[in-house]
Amino acid sequence: MEEQFSEECVDSGIHEECGVFGAYDFDGNDIASTVYYGLFALQHRGQESCGIAVSDTNGPKKNIQVHKGMGLVNEVFSSENLEKLKGNISVGHVRYSTAGSSTRENAQPLVLNYYKGTLALAHNGNLVNALELREELEKTGAIFQTTIDSEVIAYHVAKERISSATAEEAVLAAMRKLKGAYSLIVMSPRKLIGARDPFGFRPLCIGKRDNTYFLTSETCALDTVGAEFVRDVEPGEVVTLTPSGIVSNRELCFKDSSKQARCIFEYIYFARPDAVIDGVGVYASRIKAGRFLAMDSPVEADMVVGVPESGNPAAQGYAMESGIPYGTAFIKNSYVGRTFIKPKQSMRESSVQVKLNVLKDAVKGKRIVMIDDSIVRGTTCHRIVRMLKDAGAKEVHVRISSPPFLHPCYFGTDIPSEDQLIAYGKTLDEIRDSIEADTLAYLGMERLKELNNGLPYCDACFSGNYPIEPPTQDIRGEQG
Amino acid sequence: MEEQFSEECVDSGIHEECGVFGAYDFDGNDIASTVYYGLFALQHRGQESCGIAVSDTNGPKKNIQVHKGMGLVNEVFSSENLEKLKGNISVGHVRYSTAGSSTRENAQPLVLNYYKGTLALAHNGNLVNALELREELEKTGAIFQTTIDSEVIAYHVAKERISSATAEEAVLAAMRKLKGAYSLIVMSPRKLIGARDPFGFRPLCIGKRDNTYFLTSETCALDTVGAEFVRDVEPGEVVTLTPSGIVSNRELCFKDSSKQARCIFEYIYFARPDAVIDGVGVYASRIKAGRFLAMDSPVEADMVVGVPESGNPAAQGYAMESGIPYGTAFIKNSYVGRTFIKPKQSMRESSVQVKLNVLKDAVKGKRIVMIDDSIVRGTTCHRIVRMLKDAGAKEVHVRISSPPFLHPCYFGTDIPSEDQLIAYGKTLDEIRDSIEADTLAYLGMERLKELNNGLPYCDACFSGNYPIEPPTQDIRGEQG
Amino acid sequence: MEEQFSEECVDSGIHEECGVFGAYDFDGNDIASTVYYGLFALQHRGQESCGIAVSDTNGPKKNIQVHKGMGLVNEVFSSENLEKLKGNISVGHVRYSTAGSSTRENAQPLVLNYYKGTLALAHNGNLVNALELREELEKTGAIFQTTIDSEVIAYHVAKERISSATAEEAVLAAMRKLKGAYSLIVMSPRKLIGARDPFGFRPLCIGKRDNTYFLTSETCALDTVGAEFVRDVEPGEVVTLTPSGIVSNRELCFKDSSKQARCIFEYIYFARPDAVIDGVGVYASRIKAGRFLAMDSPVEADMVVGVPESGNPAAQGYAMESGIPYGTAFIKNSYVGRTFIKPKQSMRESSVQVKLNVLKDAVKGKRIVMIDDSIVRGTTCHRIVRMLKDAGAKEVHVRISSPPFLHPCYFGTDIPSEDQLIAYGKTLDEIRDSIEADTLAYLGMERLKELNNGLPYCDACFSGNYPIEPPTQDIRGEQG
Amino acid sequence: MEEQFSEECVDSGIHEECGVFGAYDFDGNDIASTVYYGLFALQHRGQESCGIAVSDTNGPKKNIQVHKGMGLVNEVFSSENLEKLKGNISVGHVRYSTAGSSTRENAQPLVLNYYKGTLALAHNGNLVNALELREELEKTGAIFQTTIDSEVIAYHVAKERISSATAEEAVLAAMRKLKGAYSLIVMSPRKLIGARDPFGFRPLCIGKRDNTYFLTSETCALDTVGAEFVRDVEPGEVVTLTPSGIVSNRELCFKDSSKQARCIFEYIYFARPDAVIDGVGVYASRIKAGRFLAMDSPVEADMVVGVPESGNPAAQGYAMESGIPYGTAFIKNSYVGRTFIKPKQSMRESSVQVKLNVLKDAVKGKRIVMIDDSIVRGTTCHRIVRMLKDAGAKEVHVRISSPPFLHPCYFGTDIPSEDQLIAYGKTLDEIRDSIEADTLAYLGMERLKELNNGLPYCDACFSGNYPIEPPTQDIRGEQG
Repeated sequence: MEEQFSEECVDSGIHEECGVFGAYDFDGNDIASTVYYGLFALQHRGQESCGIAVSDTNGPKKNIQVHKGMGLVNEVFSSENLEKLKGNISVGHVRYSTAGSSTRENAQPLVLNYYKGTLALAHNGNLVNALELREELEKTGAIFQTTIDSEVIAYHVAKERISSATAEEAVLAAMRKLKGAYSLIVMSPRKLIGARDPFGFRPLCIGKRDNTYFLTSETCALDTVGAEFVRDVEPGEVVTLTPSGIVSNRELCFKDSSKQARCIFEYIYFARPDAVIDGVGVYASRIKAGRFLAMDSPVEADMVVGVPESGNPAAQGYAMESGIPYGTAFIKNSYVGRTFIKPKQSMRESSVQVKLNVLKDAVKGKRIVMIDDSIVRGTTCHRIVRMLKDAGAKEVHVRISSPPFLHPCYFGTDIPSEDQLIAYGKTLDEIRDSIEADTLAYLGMERLKELNNGLPYCDACFSGNYPIEPPTQDIRGEQG
Repeated sequence: MEEQFSEECVDSGIHEECGVFGAYDFDGNDIASTVYYGLFALQHRGQESCGIAVSDTNGPKKNIQVHKGMGLVNEVFSSENLEKLKGNISVGHVRYSTAGSSTRENAQPLVLNYYKGTLALAHNGNLVNALELREELEKTGAIFQTTIDSEVIAYHVAKERISSATAEEAVLAAMRKLKGAYSLIVMSPRKLIGARDPFGFRPLCIGKRDNTYFLTSETCALDTVGAEFVRDVEPGEVVTLTPSGIVSNRELCFKDSSKQARCIFEYIYFARPDAVIDGVGVYASRIKAGRFLAMDSPVEADMVVGVPESGNPAAQGYAMESGIPYGTAFIKNSYVGRTFIKPKQSMRESSVQVKLNVLKDAVKGKRIVMIDDSIVRGTTCHRIVRMLKDAGAKEVHVRISSPPFLHPCYFGTDIPSEDQLIAYGKTLDEIRDSIEADTLAYLGMERLKELNNGLPYCDACFSGNYPIEPPTQDIRGEQG
Repeated sequence: MEEQFSEECVDSGIHEECGVFGAYDFDGNDIASTVYYGLFALQHRGQESCGIAVSDTNGPKKNIQVHKGMGLVNEVFSSENLEKLKGNISVGHVRYSTAGSSTRENAQPLVLNYYKGTLALAHNGNLVNALELREELEKTGAIFQTTIDSEVIAYHVAKERISSATAEEAVLAAMRKLKGAYSLIVMSPRKLIGARDPFGFRPLCIGKRDNTYFLTSETCALDTVGAEFVRDVEPGEVVTLTPSGIVSNRELCFKDSSKQARCIFEYIYFARPDAVIDGVGVYASRIKAGRFLAMDSPVEADMVVGVPESGNPAAQGYAMESGIPYGTAFIKNSYVGRTFIKPKQSMRESSVQVKLNVLKDAVKGKRIVMIDDSIVRGTTCHRIVRMLKDAGAKEVHVRISSPPFLHPCYFGTDIPSEDQLIAYGKTLDEIRDSIEADTLAYLGMERLKELNNGLPYCDACFSGNYPIEPPTQDIRGEQG
Repeated sequence: MEEQFSEECVDSGIHEECGVFGAYDFDGNDIASTVYYGLFALQHRGQESCGIAVSDTNGPKKNIQVHKGMGLVNEVFSSENLEKLKGNISVGHVRYSTAGSSTRENAQPLVLNYYKGTLALAHNGNLVNALELREELEKTGAIFQTTIDSEVIAYHVAKERISSATAEEAVLAAMRKLKGAYSLIVMSPRKLIGARDPFGFRPLCIGKRDNTYFLTSETCALDTVGAEFVRDVEPGEVVTLTPSGIVSNRELCFKDSSKQARCIFEYIYFARPDAVIDGVGVYASRIKAGRFLAMDSPVEADMVVGVPESGNPAAQGYAMESGIPYGTAFIKNSYVGRTFIKPKQSMRESSVQVKLNVLKDAVKGKRIVMIDDSIVRGTTCHRIVRMLKDAGAKEVHVRISSPPFLHPCYFGTDIPSEDQLIAYGKTLDEIRDSIEADTLAYLGMERLKELNNGLPYCDACFSGNYPIEPPTQDIRGEQG
C-alpha cells in the first residue's frame, strides 16, 4: 500500500483492521508468551493497540485476566506483565490505528462478566447491522463502554448464553443476528471457540503444536510459534476447542458455497506474503497478479521495481513473465517508528524524505516499470513517480496489481469515501496524467478470480457488488 | 494512620476509597485543568488510579472524552493529554490502591453510551446490595466490564433514563434501588449532577468561582482552585447544575434527620485537616479529640508527639489541654515514592528505616505521650513504640484519638476482618502489653458525638451498630 | 525555606548543593543497595540528579561501575539497574536542582580513568579558586566535560597520584591547592577516602554496621541504614577506610581550631532535623532558635505556627518558651511532585494554591506568631502572610529563626545576589511593611554562636565576614 | 549481514561503528531538527546511542549544548528536547550497540571545555595507537571519563589548540599523531570542521541546501534532508565550513594516492545501498558482486533469493546475469524491536521464529540460489539453509558476495577473533558441509577491485594485508 511511505500521508493508507490469535494448551502450561509471539506475526494487521487475555482452566471460573494497551506488541508487553498472565488458554488481538477512536477503551480482547461467568472476545471484521443491534440493546437498558462492534457481539453472546446450554450454542445464536464480516475468537474459562461469518470475509485457521491448539487470522503466525497448519475454519463454521477435543458446527455455513465472499484484497495486500488463506498462498497470488499485468499490459523497459514492500511480489512476477530485470529503486528506512517527529511545514515537502529514498544510480536514464498494489488518493503514487523522474528515470510505467478502487467497503477495510478516491469519475488517461506516469495499467477485473484459485470472493470495492446490502445510514460502530 | 510509615505494612493501613470532583463553567471555558488541580487536593482519598472526563456543552451530544490511568494525578496527567480534554463541564476521580483489583478497567470516571446518549459517572462509597443488583441485571443479559459497584449504579441510571424525563430523575429513580454509601457525580453532555445517599456516609459539597460551579468530596479542593464554599449537598439530596441554575431535589432525604449516619472516621482520619464537612472543621475535631484524651486519660510527661502526619493535630490538642510541650519525635522521609525498592528480607527489619526516623536527641531520657489516630493490626504501633524506647525514651504513653476498631465496614472503608484487628478479643492491658507501651488509652465512645458537633454519625466499626443491615454474603462488587 | 511552597517560586529557594554517602563492606558483600537507602536520607540535600558508583575489591583494578541520572533516587534507580552494580565498596551522591546547568553531564559521582587506574569522586561544597585551577590545567591541555568544581578536584587528585605513593597522599596533595568548601568521598578500586576542608564548611561523618563502614554528609543517613555513628570527620582531616583499618591524617587541620567555619545555615535550615553535626543536634538548635526568638522578641498571641516544614521546630521552641499554644495553620500537599503541571498565568496567582493551603478554621480571629527559618526575596513570605490574613487572622507576627540575608555565599549555598535579597538596603520596618506583617523580628547575630554550642562557624551570608577571601570575578565553576 | 535475523545471534553480526552528520546554516536558522533527520538516514551505522550538539554562532562562545542518550534516534529525541537545542551549527552522531561498553558515557558527540573555549567532536573509526596516546596523556595528569578513542582525539585537538592559530590547524596537528581510521566532525562555536584520515577508511562527504552546508558519513543522508551532494572529503583532507566560505587543507593527503585504503566492506555491506562513496554507487557495487558470482560460480537453479535485506542487491545482480528468476524466500518481521522479549530456552530453538519466516510456497520443490553478503560464525547461515530445506527446497546453493573473513579488523569493524570465524582453518568443502549447503562459493579476491571502480581499498579482513601495522597488544580504547 503506497501511502505508508510518505511523510504527509502516513496514516492515510488502507488498513486491515485487526488480527486475532488464540491458543489452548491441553497440558495445562502457561501459554501467554506463545500468544505474544503469535501477535508479532499479525502485527501488520493492526498497530494501534493490542492485548492478551488468559484463563487458567484449573483455576476458578471467574478468573480471566487481561493486559491491553495502546501501541505495538513490543511496546505494550514487557516480560514483567507477560509473566503475570498465568493460564493455559489465551486469546490475543491487534488493532489498527486511526485518528478517530484510537482509545485504550477500544482495545481488545474485551473481557466481560455476565450471568454465567466471564468471557473474553477478540474480533476481526465489521458488522453492517451494528447500529440496529446496539439500539435494540440500549432500549432494554444496556450500556456500552466502547465504540466498537465487538462489544455488540459480546452482548449478544452473553445474552444468548443465559438460555443456551453451552457457550458455543450462545455464539451460534448470536451469529444468527449478526450481519457482516467477523472472524471471532471467544474464550470462556474452559473453552476456546472460533467462528467465521458465513461469507468468510476475513480469514481464520486452526493450528497445532504438540498438545496445544491454535486459532489465528493468518497461517504465518503458526509458523512463527512453530505450529503446524491443521485447516481453515470454514465460512460460517463454529469450532470449539475443549480438553475433550475439537468440535465443529457447520449449521450456519451456506449450503451454496458460491455465496461465500472472501475479501480479495487480503490476497492483494492485507495478508503477509507467507500466509496461506483457504488453501491459496498469498505470495503466489501476488506473483500471478504481476504476471497477468505483464501479459495484459506489457511495455518495453529496462527494469521492474516494486513500491516497497507491498509492491515487490507483483514486481517479481512481472519480471519473471516479461524477462525485464527486477531491481530496487527505493530504500525504505525501517528505523522510522511511531514516535518519529514529523517535519514541520516550514521544511518543504520535497526537502525531507526520511522514510523513502530513491536509488538514483539504479534509476538514472532507465525506463522503469513501477508496480504497486493499489492507488487510493493518488497523492503518494504521484509523489513516487516524481521521485523517480527527479532521479533521472527516462520513463515510468505504472502497473497496479488490482483494479481501481471505486466503492467504500463495509466489511472491515477503511477505504475512504468515493470523493477521495482518485479513480472515481476519472478516465484511465486522466488518472495517468494526474500521477504523471508515462503509461498506467490496472489489473483487469476478470483476473481477480484467478488470484485465489476460483474460490468465491468479494470485490465490492472495485465492482460495487456488495454480498450483503450495505447500511443505509452511516455506520456508527467501529471495526473490531 | 500509622501503617503508612512502616516498610512492611505500607499498604495495610485503612484507606478511604475515593474522591470526586466536578466542575461546570457556564461561560464555556475549558475546565479540565482546574479539575486536575482539584484532584490534587483529594489525592489523599485515592492513589491507585485517577481520571478526568469532559464534555463540551457547545459540542455534539455524544462527545464525552476521558483520560484515565493507574497512578497519581501527577503521573497520569501530562500537559499534553490534559490539553486534549476540551470542554467546559468535567468530572474527575481518584481511587485508592489495593492489591486485588487495582486494574485500569476499574479506574473512574466510567463513561458509557446508552439509549439517550452518553454519561460519565464518578462514585465514592460502597453499596451493600451491589451483588443482588448486579445479578438482577445479568439475568436480563447485561455484561459488566469492571468489578466496581459504580458500574452497577451507572447501569441503573442508564436504564431509568429510558423512561425518565430528565437525567436527574433517572438518578433519583436509580437511587431508590441503591442501598449503601454513595456520593456521586454524574455528568451528562449538558448537566452536572451531584447526589449523596440519604445516610450521608461520605461528604459532598458545592463551590463557586465566578461563573463556574463545583462539586467535590472535600472543601479543601475548593480552596485549592480558588473557589468559595457554597454549601454541602444534604444527605439524600440530588443537585443539578445547569446553565439555567442549580436545582435541588430532596425527595429522598430522611424526614427524620437522626437517621443520617456520617462516617465519623472522616473526621478522625480520612479527610484532610483543612476540610470542613457538614459545617464541622476537621482540624478542630482532631484538636478536640486530643483535648478529650488529655482530660480523660492524663499522664505526667515531658513531651507530646504525634505519629506523622495524621496524629499531629490530636497531639497538638493534647498539648494545649495538658500544658505538656508539643514536640517532634519522628522525621518522615517524603521522598519515598511509589517506585521505592523495598529492602530485601536479608536486611533485617530493624536495619533499614527509610521512611521514618526517630529524633533521638529530642526523645532521649524523656517521658513521651505518643498520639495516633487509630491502631489496626498493632504491628506498626508496636514498632514505633520500640523505636522511641530504643532511642532512649524513658516512658511511652500511647493515646489513640478514636475508640478501638472491632468491626468491619461495609460503607467504603477497608477495615480488615476481625481476626486481624489487634483490639478484637483483647483487653486494654493486653493491647498495651503487646505494643510495649507504658500506658495506653483510647478515645471514649461517648466522646465521638462531640467531634462533629452532634450531627448524626455512623460508628459501626467501633460499635457494631450498622445503620443499614450488612450483606449476608461476601460482597463481590468493589468500592467506587 | 519558605519559597518551596509557592507555585511561582518553587525553584527559587535556597538550596544545599549536595549530599555524599559512601560504604565499604570489608566482608565483601554487595553494598550498592545500602547506598541507595542512604541516599534517600540525604535526598533533601539534592534533588536534581544522583548516582552510585561501585567497585569490587576482589575484581580487576579498573572496574568501577556507575549509574547516574537526572531525578530523584526513586526515579533514577530501579531494582534492575541497582542489581547490576556489583561491588563491596561504593560511593553515592545527590545533587540539587537549578535551572542553569542541570544536565546529566554534571551528575556525580564522577568516574575517571587516569594513569594509575580509575577512581570515583563525590563532592559537596564549592571552591573559590576553581576558576584559577581550571585555567591552570587547561593551559597544559586539559579538557573538561562538566561545569562542576568536582572535575577540577578530580583532575588534581589524578595528577598528584602520579607522583604519590598512595591515593590518600594524592588527596592530601590536591587539598593543598583547593580553596573553599569541600566534603569529599574518593573511591579507588580498593579504598574509600573521606576528606573535609580545614574550615569544615560542610559536614561529613563516619558510621559502622557490623563489618561495614560508612562516610556520609549527615548522621540521619546512618540511622536509615541501621548503622551506628562512630565520629565526625574533623575539618581538614583525611580518613582512609581500607581492609586493614581506618587511617586518619590530620596534617591539614588548623592548629588553631577557631579558624574553622562550619556553615551555620546547616543548623538553621539545610540539615535534616534528626542530623547531629559535630556533636550538635540540629533539631535542638532549631528549638533553641525558637526559644531565643520568644525571649528576645515576645508578643501576645493565640497560636504559634511554623511555615512547613522547615519552620516547625523553631515554632515548637517558641511555643515552649512563650507558653502560647503550638498549632497548625498550613496544610502542605505532599503529592505535588516534579512532573506537576504549573498553573498557567491565566489562572490568577491567588486562585490556584495546590501546594499550600491555610487551615481557615484554625486561624480565623486569632493572633498568630508565624515562624520561618529565613526570608530570601520576601515574595513568598508576603504571600503566606496574606493567606493568613485572608483566612481571618487578626494579627500576624513574623519571627525568623536566622538573621537577615545580606551577602552572597561562595561556599556552596545558592543565595541570590544582593539586589534580590529583601533585607538588602531596607530597614526592619520597611521589610515588615513589604510583607504586610504586624510585627517582624529576626534572630539576633549574637544568638548564632549558641545554636551550635560554641563551635566556630561561618555567618558570612549574614555578616559579610568571609573566612576565605571570595573570588574577585564571577565563579565560573559550579558546586558539587 | 546474516546474523541479525536470528533470535540467538541477534547481536553477533558485524557492525559498522558510527555515523556522523554535521550542518551549518549560514543564515543563522536553527538546524538541530535537520540533523535529527540526517541521523535517521545513518541509523544503520549505529543503534546503541546517539546525540546532537548545537552552537549558536550569534550566541556566547562557550555555549555548546548537547543532548545524548542510549537508544535509537527515535527514542532519544522528542520534539521537546529537540526544540531546546537552539543553534545554527550542529553535529550529530550515531553509535552502535555492543554488550561491553554500551554506556551513556560513551555516547557522542563529546562536548568539552578547554583553554580556548568549547568544542564538540563526533568520530567514526578506530585508532591503532589510541592506547599509546592515552598513556602518554595520562602521564601528564590527564583524566578520561569514557573508554572511547574519540576522547583521545579530543584531547589532542584541545592540546594543540593552545599553540595553534586556528581550530583547523589544531585538528591538523592532532591528526599528525593519530594512526588509524577516523572520519571526524569537529564543531567549535563558530566553525564546522570535517577531517578524514589519509587512508580514507571511512567515508565522509559534503552537501549543500540553500545556504546550509553539510558533512555526513553517507550521501543518502543528504538525500534525506533535501541537500545536494557537493563532493567527498578526500582521504587526508581537512575541510572547514565558516561563514566566509569552505576552506580545504590537503597537507596530510598522500601524494601517492595508491596508499589510500577505503574499507571495501562499506561497499559490500555497511553503507546503505543508496549511498555513493567516493563516486561509486553502493547498490551498483552489490549488483556487480552478484553478477560476478553468477559468472564465476554459476549453477542451474529455479530461483535466486537474497537473505534479507543485505543479500538482496547481489541476488538481483545474480538474477540479471544468470537469467534465473529473482524471488522472495524470506519474510522479515520489521516490528520486532529492541524491547522484544527473547524466547526462553524452554521454547525450542526451532519453534519460535519471530524475526524471519520462510515463504514455504515459493520455495517448495525448487532449486534455490541463496545470496548473502558474508558468513561470520556460520551458525545463522546454517540455520537459514536449514529453514529452506525444511520448507521443501530441493537444492540450496549458497553464494557469498565477499571473500571469506579470515582476519580481525583494527579500523572500526567488530569482526570477531579468528577462532570464531567459520572460514578460519577450514576448506571450502568443510564450510559448505557445516552449513549443509549443496554448493558454496565466495566472491573471488580479484573481483574486489572491480567493486569500487579501481579506487585503492583495504581488504585486510580477507587478506591480512594491513595498510597500517596493527597494534601488538589488545586495543584498550574503543571505536568512536
